[in-house]
Amino acid sequence: MNEKIPFLEHVAYQMRRWSIRMTSKAGSGHVSSSLSAADIIAALFFDVMHFDPDQFENPNNDRFILSKGHAVPILYAAWHELGKLTDQEVLTYRSFDSVLEGHPTLRFPYAEAATGSLGIGLSIGVGEALAAKQAKRDYKTFVLMGDSEVSEGSIWEAAQLATYYKLNNIIGIIDCNRLGQSTPTMEALEGDGPERFKKMFDAFGWQSEIVDGHDMQSLVTVLEKARTKADRPVMIIARTKKGYGVALMEDKEGFHGKALKDDQEKQALEQLRERFADAASYSDSYQWKSQEPAKEAASKKQVVQMPLPAYKKGEEIPTRKAYGQSLVALGGVCEQVVSLDGEVKNSTYAELFEKAYPDRFYQCFIAEQNMIGMGIGFDRRGFISFISTFASFFSRAHDQLRMAAIGQASLRLAGSHAGVSIGQDGPSQMGLEDIAMMRGLPESIVLYPCDAVSTYKLVNEMANHHESISYLRTTRMATPVIYDPNESFPVGGCKVLKQSSSDQVLVIGAGVTLFEALKAHEELAKEGTSIAVIDLYSIKPLDVQTIISVARACKNRIITVEDHYPAGGIGEAVAAAVSTENIEVYRLAVTHLPRSGQPEELLADAGINAEAIIKRVKQF
Amino acid sequence: MNEKIPFLEHVAYQMRRWSIRMTSKAGSGHVSSSLSAADIIAALFFDVMHFDPDQFENPNNDRFILSKGHAVPILYAAWHELGKLTDQEVLTYRSFDSVLEGHPTLRFPYAEAATGSLGIGLSIGVGEALAAKQAKRDYKTFVLMGDSEVSEGSIWEAAQLATYYKLNNIIGIIDCNRLGQSTPTMEALEGDGPERFKKMFDAFGWQSEIVDGHDMQSLVTVLEKARTKADRPVMIIARTKKGYGVALMEDKEGFHGKALKDDQEKQALEQLRERFADAASYSDSYQWKSQEPAKEAASKKQVVQMPLPAYKKGEEIPTRKAYGQSLVALGGVCEQVVSLDGEVKNSTYAELFEKAYPDRFYQCFIAEQNMIGMGIGFDRRGFISFISTFASFFSRAHDQLRMAAIGQASLRLAGSHAGVSIGQDGPSQMGLEDIAMMRGLPESIVLYPCDAVSTYKLVNEMANHHESISYLRTTRMATPVIYDPNESFPVGGCKVLKQSSSDQVLVIGAGVTLFEALKAHEELAKEGTSIAVIDLYSIKPLDVQTIISVARACKNRIITVEDHYPAGGIGEAVAAAVSTENIEVYRLAVTHLPRSGQPEELLADAGINAEAIIKRVKQF
Repeated sequence: MNEKIPFLEHVAYQMRRWSIRMTSKAGSGHVSSSLSAADIIAALFFDVMHFDPDQFENPNNDRFILSKGHAVPILYAAWHELGKLTDQEVLTYRSFDSVLEGHPTLRFPYAEAATGSLGIGLSIGVGEALAAKQAKRDYKTFVLMGDSEVSEGSIWEAAQLATYYKLNNIIGIIDCNRLGQSTPTMEALEGDGPERFKKMFDAFGWQSEIVDGHDMQSLVTVLEKARTKADRPVMIIARTKKGYGVALMEDKEGFHGKALKDDQEKQALEQLRERFADAASYSDSYQWKSQEPAKEAASKKQVVQMPLPAYKKGEEIPTRKAYGQSLVALGGVCEQVVSLDGEVKNSTYAELFEKAYPDRFYQCFIAEQNMIGMGIGFDRRGFISFISTFASFFSRAHDQLRMAAIGQASLRLAGSHAGVSIGQDGPSQMGLEDIAMMRGLPESIVLYPCDAVSTYKLVNEMANHHESISYLRTTRMATPVIYDPNESFPVGGCKVLKQSSSDQVLVIGAGVTLFEALKAHEELAKEGTSIAVIDLYSIKPLDVQTIISVARACKNRIITVEDHYPAGGIGEAVAAAVSTENIEVYRLAVTHLPRSGQPEELLADAGINAEAIIKRVKQF
Repeated sequence: MNEKIPFLEHVAYQMRRWSIRMTSKAGSGHVSSSLSAADIIAALFFDVMHFDPDQFENPNNDRFILSKGHAVPILYAAWHELGKLTDQEVLTYRSFDSVLEGHPTLRFPYAEAATGSLGIGLSIGVGEALAAKQAKRDYKTFVLMGDSEVSEGSIWEAAQLATYYKLNNIIGIIDCNRLGQSTPTMEALEGDGPERFKKMFDAFGWQSEIVDGHDMQSLVTVLEKARTKADRPVMIIARTKKGYGVALMEDKEGFHGKALKDDQEKQALEQLRERFADAASYSDSYQWKSQEPAKEAASKKQVVQMPLPAYKKGEEIPTRKAYGQSLVALGGVCEQVVSLDGEVKNSTYAELFEKAYPDRFYQCFIAEQNMIGMGIGFDRRGFISFISTFASFFSRAHDQLRMAAIGQASLRLAGSHAGVSIGQDGPSQMGLEDIAMMRGLPESIVLYPCDAVSTYKLVNEMANHHESISYLRTTRMATPVIYDPNESFPVGGCKVLKQSSSDQVLVIGAGVTLFEALKAHEELAKEGTSIAVIDLYSIKPLDVQTIISVARACKNRIITVEDHYPAGGIGEAVAAAVSTENIEVYRLAVTHLPRSGQPEELLADAGINAEAIIKRVKQF
């Protein structure tokens, strides 16, 4: 037997102890799910993985993603064994002042990703593995999943993509402990879970292998082989037992997410000591040293400055096409930029980037959840990912976006085909809730350009925004260029396009409705009525000061017009922002389920065209 | 050769012709995707399926779901051949006044489901197949998919569940035409697509078979066998060609979603006639008659009246638990009720229903997308489905919810673990955007009870609401019962709990924050300051009239307090609703990313507890 095996067993024993102690101290937490994973984690962190614990962001480090985020005690225990957390610190688990949260977040400096909604980690891993290929680096990406989460479709999206991209540098591990939160897994109920999983992953093109997840020598052997000799993605299916090592809960239902109370804790620690007597009394001199890559700092993201756009005023061009063109311009000045698209590249115009930089374009096919997960992975490994699909289809990945926000990922999203103005394809293809969804992501930025110049400038802004998710909403139909190439579009600003001393009301439009507002302005002017018009290209943050000051000069009246449902849209954002300012806000939005038709018919039917604005103005 | 084969080929020919004609007339639409599916549809509708075209909702009819919704011209063409659409009607495709939309919606009376976002149909089919088992009916469910959409994870969620539930009454068909919108499919790029799909579905426990999708005899044989002799779910993988029958586009890239222009249309119709000369000149006397089940009307949903709840004032009980208890009471008076849960039944308390009515409980495991699709299927087949998971995890199925709303499905959703008040588990488990998401669904109802009695009464309201999606937000922690069992809670109402002649402000709370508002009321009263308090148990629809009239008596001031992000939440809803009423609205909500901690710490940190309310009131 290799002398390292007793050492690894000792580490696993220690991590089990600390998992019990920290959960009992916290009074809650997922101890049973941690115990099943302890041996796997010991093998990975103290033998198989090549990484430098002192330089977590070293770009050559192997990466580890804890997809089964509830088992985070075992991750904290590992970093405790690595010497990065004191005894005292590890016992702050789940307390308000601690960074050791109930599920991993980026507040913990050694977390690769925020997890806790299940089935997301493998997609993040696919992104990190692709980033390795893109950066021509040799690091490997390990993803630890639970067996319950394999029911999530996103796992199978990731599995298909990993095979398609021939990723021989990603190793998934399923901690197959048979028991979910409230029931055994589907596969366990149907027969032999591991065997079923093996068949499934093999059929998806992975190289999969079943291993005893509590036999250290077997684990080390199979993981080491996976790390060094794979010609495709590898899935290690580890037979484990939930609560392994503590008789009172081992392989038993009813212990998911349950911390042990005082007397139980004592009993558990005793059972553990008896079960792993050798590991508990381990005192060998095996000197563990991580297999570290050479020191290298992660590269910083540079401030990117795109050349001036070449659009001419009056030129008609859809903002979605301008997005594609802007991305090409950006790609020319920044090599970190990659483009991900969900099989609609000819609609979102991501295909322009693909043509210009084929080696930096990633076709993600119709699998939006995995695409967002991949984006998180690319972001973590230093790339600037722009991710495009129809605005409506980002809803497919709402949970991934939510988790990306919790993980402080700086994803850049471009949603085309916003609103009823797309026309004949009908409501299933219309983004009508995207503004609300994107505004709801913590710290997010929501942008909505009306023309090609503002699109171009906002893409540049997004490239330089690394703190959170930014979203660009684009329009299917062509709209005329109204801005000068020199105009700047700071995030959080707006453009006051029409203003006079006799304005009756401030009309706020964005995207396609901005032009309806301008049309209304023109028509009303003929009749001697003047209105102010703002282009709200930045919906979040909102330029509240400018809105209020213009509204003040407009009899304290605002009309908002948006190609979006009312809930969480522009109207509500504005109404809420001025809700203590004694300003009236009238909101025009899509209040009923739309249908197929011509764009003009649908804008009229929704009551968000120039005519509807004029009608509303005349009611004053 | 069977005499029906020439007839079916003739039907397919006719449907191809009409698919070309209607798309060219509309000037847009997915003709190439329709042509690949024509033979499959002919075989299904004119031979294999047992259904009564004159009684679409006959509960014994076989069901057909067009998951590849963009190919809807072929569905309209089928109903044209069935005599239910005139030539004139079929040519209204995609026009504003027509029910023949660009993707199928429930406005078309022969659509089984709204589709158009891909990868959803199979889940709806699983729901319909389970509904057949539940109702002890023999009908079969057919789902036609495209090969591109097989990359969606939701397909694999459905595949796992269908195997788990041993569904021998669902038949999937993949129209394997090799080409997606902008690229060949992953599987086609990797090798032989159909062979790969077969391996994948076989591994997931399906019985799958590859067939020539343009050979009518083979299609009929394999589909008939699948209909009558399956012992598990069946997947027919049909080798087809996109644009089949029209040389100018057959098997060619660049024709996705492109209608043919005048001259192309003429040419295409000619090519079609040459290619299918026999079918075009068909004049046999084969008398097709659908294999109809006996006439039977679909059962109407009855008005359900639950017995009075037994809760006592002051009793402490989490609303999530009251939800489970209410569901049991409902199940006792209504046999149509089924419960679906996403592997958190011990957290949502759906387990109480399972214990009471095990044969009406469906464990959906961790696969929320498929769970919502299943709910749509149950709804279409006459069941009243209540679907539960954590509030945050409904975001995983946002796209399915969006499509359910477009399809006018009456899903009943219960989201537990709302807000920061869940405590230590941290942000990944906190529903903080669910109100916004649910409000954004067209025609939806959003309910948020604060105690067990209101929970119980609102569950009864939901059971009787068949027009749209309704959502119940529940709380993890225990809250005291404050209402009398006789109190009624109409949807769209609210409860004015505190009101006096000297109120300084109206405080609107809901769920857990209602109690913070009541606490603030009590504290402030001690100091001689009085405030009005409303329990906003119905967030959508909103009782605007009551809110305004109470606010008028409160110096036109409102404070909203919610355990939710600001975007699209209660504060924005209220601010927008009173935005022209000269009422000030101050909003307390969760404005930054929360963390793990004790509920009280987190309510304080977010500034949504009694203290924060008091502080805000004192600022007046």
